[in-house]
Amino acid sequence: MRVIPSIPEMRAQVLQYKRDGLTIGFVPTMGYFHAGHIALMELARQLTDRVVVSLFVNPTQFGPNEDLSRYPRDMERDTRMAKEAGVDIFFTPDANELYSKAFSTWVNVEGLSEHLCGRSRPGHFRGVATIVAKLFGIVQPDKAVFGQKDFQQLAIIRRMVQDLNMPVEIVAHETVREPDGLAMSSRNTYLSQGERASALCLYQALCKAETALKTEKIGLETLKNAIEGVISAKPFTRIDYIFIGDPNSLQPYDEDGFQKAKEVLAALAVWVGKTRLIDNMCFTKQPH
Amino acid sequence: MRVIPSIPEMRAQVLQYKRDGLTIGFVPTMGYFHAGHIALMELARQLTDRVVVSLFVNPTQFGPNEDLSRYPRDMERDTRMAKEAGVDIFFTPDANELYSKAFSTWVNVEGLSEHLCGRSRPGHFRGVATIVAKLFGIVQPDKAVFGQKDFQQLAIIRRMVQDLNMPVEIVAHETVREPDGLAMSSRNTYLSQGERASALCLYQALCKAETALKTEKIGLETLKNAIEGVISAKPFTRIDYIFIGDPNSLQPYDEDGFQKAKEVLAALAVWVGKTRLIDNMCFTKQPH
Repeated sequence: MRVIPSIPEMRAQVLQYKRDGLTIGFVPTMGYFHAGHIALMELARQLTDRVVVSLFVNPTQFGPNEDLSRYPRDMERDTRMAKEAGVDIFFTPDANELYSKAFSTWVNVEGLSEHLCGRSRPGHFRGVATIVAKLFGIVQPDKAVFGQKDFQQLAIIRRMVQDLNMPVEIVAHETVREPDGLAMSSRNTYLSQGERASALCLYQALCKAETALKTEKIGLETLKNAIEGVISAKPFTRIDYIFIGDPNSLQPYDEDGFQKAKEVLAALAVWVGKTRLIDNMCFTKQPH
Repeated sequence: MRVIPSIPEMRAQVLQYKRDGLTIGFVPTMGYFHAGHIALMELARQLTDRVVVSLFVNPTQFGPNEDLSRYPRDMERDTRMAKEAGVDIFFTPDANELYSKAFSTWVNVEGLSEHLCGRSRPGHFRGVATIVAKLFGIVQPDKAVFGQKDFQQLAIIRRMVQDLNMPVEIVAHETVREPDGLAMSSRNTYLSQGERASALCLYQALCKAETALKTEKIGLETLKNAIEGVISAKPFTRIDYIFIGDPNSLQPYDEDGFQKAKEVLAALAVWVGKTRLIDNMCFTKQPH
């Protein structure tokens, strides 16, 4: 595995791969790898000839009061894990090289950014879309792999790629979970032991929603209350949002839309202590 | 020359060129070709193995009261002229294919869009940056050629390419003029005979500015007044803006900045009858 910290060097490597007729798989990350990241890298390996993984904790997707400065970092461990996962290029660009003083171009995906995390994190998805566009410009991947845990991010990137006719295929990987069901996240490392126990409520609430949708005809408010009940029962928790809506438009359902819907996205953001966690599941509704 | 109206077909052709190791030169246009367009195509031919010219009158860069519907079109003549210029691919995509109903992604170059045409045409450069990003995504050119008549457009596209790390080199071509000095523009076709005579005032005003800057130490207001005098002397004219500023930041100079400046961009937008014309020159100031 080659570690490349500079953009021109990365460009030269990409050019060489293209000349050699090799396809490039790409996994953009913010590092502090867990089994979820590794699964994305392994999927990229299966799909393409060469795998590029980037590690960049992107400042423009963090709000002023968010956890940019304390976001967990461990370059040595990440490098080892990427190498073990069979990654070819570990791209670790510098913030000053990516964002010059004159930087002033933003990619904005309207509509899909309105609800869910877009509401609690204004500017977040503008930062995500912009950095992903930049990394695509440098790495020029044939396929890029993203996790479904960040459902809205995935939807926004798909939209951006389609709208801007970017020559890359977006591949989704299902959410990787701890044995007890907690969605893998670099932010899980923030959790105390007690908070870790409470954090399971996101998964439990989604499972409860799944069961409810499978076994009974349920109203939208009843479903939301059931989810809220599971979360509120746990200490340290504070709900940021419970979203029940259309997995394509990311617009929330009203009661009527919910009753008619065939596909339901249930997505949650919950503060557990000082840590904000997200999770989601997508259900196909059974006729009752 | 091959005429390609569909995006997937264009993509397939690009892929073939890349596989064959051929470089691609690109000239995006809104058609109704004049010698300025042809000069861009010829420059692209000199610089790259294959030349793609797109013709698309992009609705998202026109304001609601602008001339989208009456923008001059002549596909037959354009096709013939492109063929004669040695163009390989004439790409003529459809608005419905480029902008789906779900389209919602915009590329916004902040700062550079504030003054000049950005002021009189709100949203114009967002439309320009977005369509150029889209066309770059489809055509994947090695080099793209733009005319300097649209100075602000060129600056914004250079900024976008740098900020989004797009793998394309932007090449500028100097403004091509009629024998009497009028900058070539598809919109010149709107002009009546009397208006055509008046339209020369943009070029004349810029020449006057050039002479003034070369031969005397001049104040900013005196320079602007001299420019204004040349334009106002002609019938049918109404000044939209006279911009004297920095050619890199596209910020206007104040008196002090103007006196210290080494490079001066003089840019004009003038209504001649119902036609809005632009022109510009960039000067290196002589010490007096």
